Order: sequence, then C-alpha cells, then structure tokens
Amino acid sequence: MDFQKKTSDYINLINEKIESYLDDSFVLYRQMHYCMMSGGKRIRPLLLLSVSKNLQTALPFACAIEFIHNYSLVHDDLPAMDNDDYRRGILTCHKKFGEAVAILVGDALLTLACEIVLDEPKFFNAAKKIFNAAGINGMIKGQVLELESKIITTDELRQIHLNKTAALIRASLEAGIILSGENKNVLKNFSALGNKLGLAFQIKDDILDKDEERMTYFKMYGLEKSQDIFNNLADEIYSDIEKFDGQYDFFKYLVKNILERKN
Amino acid sequence: MDFQKKTSDYINLINEKIESYLDDSFVLYRQMHYCMMSGGKRIRPLLLLSVSKNLQTALPFACAIEFIHNYSLVHDDLPAMDNDDYRRGILTCHKKFGEAVAILVGDALLTLACEIVLDEPKFFNAAKKIFNAAGINGMIKGQVLELESKIITTDELRQIHLNKTAALIRASLEAGIILSGENKNVLKNFSALGNKLGLAFQIKDDILDKDEERMTYFKMYGLEKSQDIFNNLADEIYSDIEKFDGQYDFFKYLVKNILERKN
Repeated sequence: MDFQKKTSDYINLINEKIESYLDDSFVLYRQMHYCMMSGGKRIRPLLLLSVSKNLQTALPFACAIEFIHNYSLVHDDLPAMDNDDYRRGILTCHKKFGEAVAILVGDALLTLACEIVLDEPKFFNAAKKIFNAAGINGMIKGQVLELESKIITTDELRQIHLNKTAALIRASLEAGIILSGENKNVLKNFSALGNKLGLAFQIKDDILDKDEERMTYFKMYGLEKSQDIFNNLADEIYSDIEKFDGQYDFFKYLVKNILERKN
Repeated sequence: MDFQKKTSDYINLINEKIESYLDDSFVLYRQMHYCMMSGGKRIRPLLLLSVSKNLQTALPFACAIEFIHNYSLVHDDLPAMDNDDYRRGILTCHKKFGEAVAILVGDALLTLACEIVLDEPKFFNAAKKIFNAAGINGMIKGQVLELESKIITTDELRQIHLNKTAALIRASLEAGIILSGENKNVLKNFSALGNKLGLAFQIKDDILDKDEERMTYFKMYGLEKSQDIFNNLADEIYSDIEKFDGQYDFFKYLVKNILERKN
C-alpha cells in the first residue's frame, strides 16, 4: 500500500474534521483556526488513527488530541513561558492577536477538546487516557518540572520529556487501541511503546533544534551522545514493532517516518 | 430547617472534596490549592447541590464547576487580561507565583475538571452542560465579547453578562437537575431561571463593585437605573421560585441569599 498517500489522505481528513469544529462566524473561532491550520504535522492524530479499526469513531478523538496539543503550544509560546514570536513560520498567536486572545484561544481549544469527547460517551475510557495524559500527571507536570527545575539531572530531564511530550503521544496510541476494543495486554504494549516513541521524538527534536536556552538532550549530552541515546531507543522501538507481524503496517510506517525525520 | 447551618455544612463538604483532588506533594497541587482554598463563596457548587437529590453523586460535578470557575479567575487576573493583584484579600496567583505558574495553574484546574467528570461516565449529559457553558459558546464567548467590544450597547452588555457569568451558573442548576433524573420540562425551567439568576448576580456585582474601568451595568446605567433593572429581575426570579410549592426549599434559600447579598 502507498502509505505516503495514505498519510496525506488522513491529514486531509483530520484537517477537514478540525475545521468542521471551527466553522463559525465568531471571532475567536477564526483566531483558533489561525493557530490550528498553520501546517502542523498532525503526528498525534495520525498515530491514533493508525492503530484504530474504525476511522469515523476515532476521528473526533484524533481531533481532540490535536486541539490539546495546540492549546499547549499557544500557551507555551506566551511571553511568560517560552516567549516565542514565530511558530511554523508564522507569527505566534499572541504576536498576531495579543496576549489576552492567546490565553483565551488556548482555554477555548482545551475546552473544545473536552466538549468533543463528551459527545462520545461510549468511549469515555479513551477520553480518560487523553485527559489524564494532558493534565497534572502528564503534560502539565512536564511543563512545571521544566519551569521549576534549577539544576536538572539526567533523570529529571528524562522525566520532563516523558511527561511533557511522551504522555500525549502515548495517549494517542492508548486511545486508538481502546477505541478498537483491544485487550489490556495489547494496551499495555502500546503504552510502553508510546512512552519510548514520545521520548525518542523529543530527543530527535532536541538534536534537530540545537536549542541552548532550555535544558535539552543536546545541551546536556552533546550531539554525539544524544545521537547514541536516540539510536538505542530507536533500535528498541524497531525491535518492538517487528513483533507486530503483518499487523499495524501503517503505524509502523509512521513510526519509521517519525524516527527518521530530518526536520 | 436551619439553612444557614446547611450552607456551611455543604461548604465544608465541597471544600473537603476539592482538597481531596489536590492531595499530593507535587508543587503545582500546592499552587492550585492556594487559589482554590482562598475563601470563595462556592455559589455554583452550592446551587448544583441544592437541586440535586443525591449528594454523593453530585459532589464531583459541584467540584468540577468550582475548578472551572477558579481557572477562569486565575487566567482573568493575569496582566494581559484584568491585571489584578489581589483577589479575596490575598495576592492573585500570578503575583504570588509568577505568570507562567498562573497560566499552568489555570490549565491544570480546567483539565482536572475534565478528568473528574470523565470519571463519572453515567452522567455525561450533566458534564456536557457544564463544559458547553464553560466554552466558546458560553463563558469564553463572554470574555471575548468583553475584550473585543469597543463601544458596548445595552444589548451587548447583556450578552457579555449572560455568557461570561450566567452560563456557568445556569449550568450548575442544569447539571444538578440532570443528575437528579428530572424531565426536560423541569430542566427547561431551571435553565431559564439560571440565566436570570446569573444575570442578576452579575448586575448585583456591578452595583456593589462600582468598577469604572470596565463596562458594567453601574457604568452604563448609573446606580439608580441598575438597581431598578436588578429589582425587576429579582421580582421575576422570586415569582418563578414561588411556583416550586414546598419543593427546593434549600435552593430558594440560596437564591434569596444571592439576591440580597451585601458584598
């Protein structure tokens, strides 16, 4: 199968569905639209869909995760946080519309994600995984650890990455697996895999960004050692997904793409 | 029955339950605790409980609403929004812990509210009312209208108050009524009543605060005319609740307290 085409087809589906939630004349919807439709890679919703058996059932959850991811970016970019002026080559939300709007856009994206999953009460277990991963025991914990840690140890850096980035990537897989009605053993395997994939994703990000301002794997370990850590993790992940003999082929393709991305 | 004692008993129950969600050694929990336990009047959770038949079932939803209310206050107080240094006589979250923490505390409170209602899948309809009222078609819409409106008409001011304040107060009643398994007619009556009560609550706030910086009923109409509008609304509400003959007595007591409050 042509997985490259499948990827772009799925991204189109995700984008159409995202826009369907923002189809309104109210000004904040247009500001949310600006932040949502600026060309994100849609990694989390793609992962969710790639392990789901029913596309239509899974699509709202894929969008909810992308709304959550983007709310966190909009708030992260604020002057009090990372103070970023550009994202994906265009002005960040607060540079474009002002800080007050950016705070409200983030709040509205998060609330919308919650409204979306509450419209699918049959699958509250998938929704729980997503919101637990987004909250104080997941993504927000990672943000707080990063903010509060003065001298960061290697273990703390790993905890920051696991919470800030891996939790939501793990939850994408968990939600997709739960929506497909798989058993607890399968779920457990994908949880572990999601953590590894999320960590590898973030280390790759650190290597590609070479950001010296915040603590990253690149800054802590240097390029060569970071690359070693990444390679070991990637080997583990490849060995894990090889066990899915003849199954989850699209998911495997996405994993390979994520691990081998150049930007 | 001694409703004054019942009110303080219920506030104690609400506060204990709120603290149970924050019982953790992680630093952000302590910062959330600071914002949550600074002596709020707990009007929304009290209203929810007052129309609920089963206290234990309703308590998580009452807390979720209070978490949502407080997240909105923490974000509203930020320098980019209302820029308030004090709330309830103590430093606001960002003055105490810094802006980045205040952004994350607000995000964490909202996410926690969502996690709480997702733990109660049987009552997703009550949860939906709450999150719809909190989102872009409710509270956030009111905040945006207030932020974006340059010259405010009387009708726009009413829309701001209805969305920013009344939506969540209405949803408190709606959630309580849904949790009690009441029929759609009862729900409809309480929705209408919730809107009136929320509007009256905000006009009373405007009269008590005499805030000249933002557009309020006080600023738009002056004291006497604001008081007239309030009195007419209060008369309507009293006439509405008189119809609950021998029912919802605690709710009626709370309504009376809200309408007659002096601070």
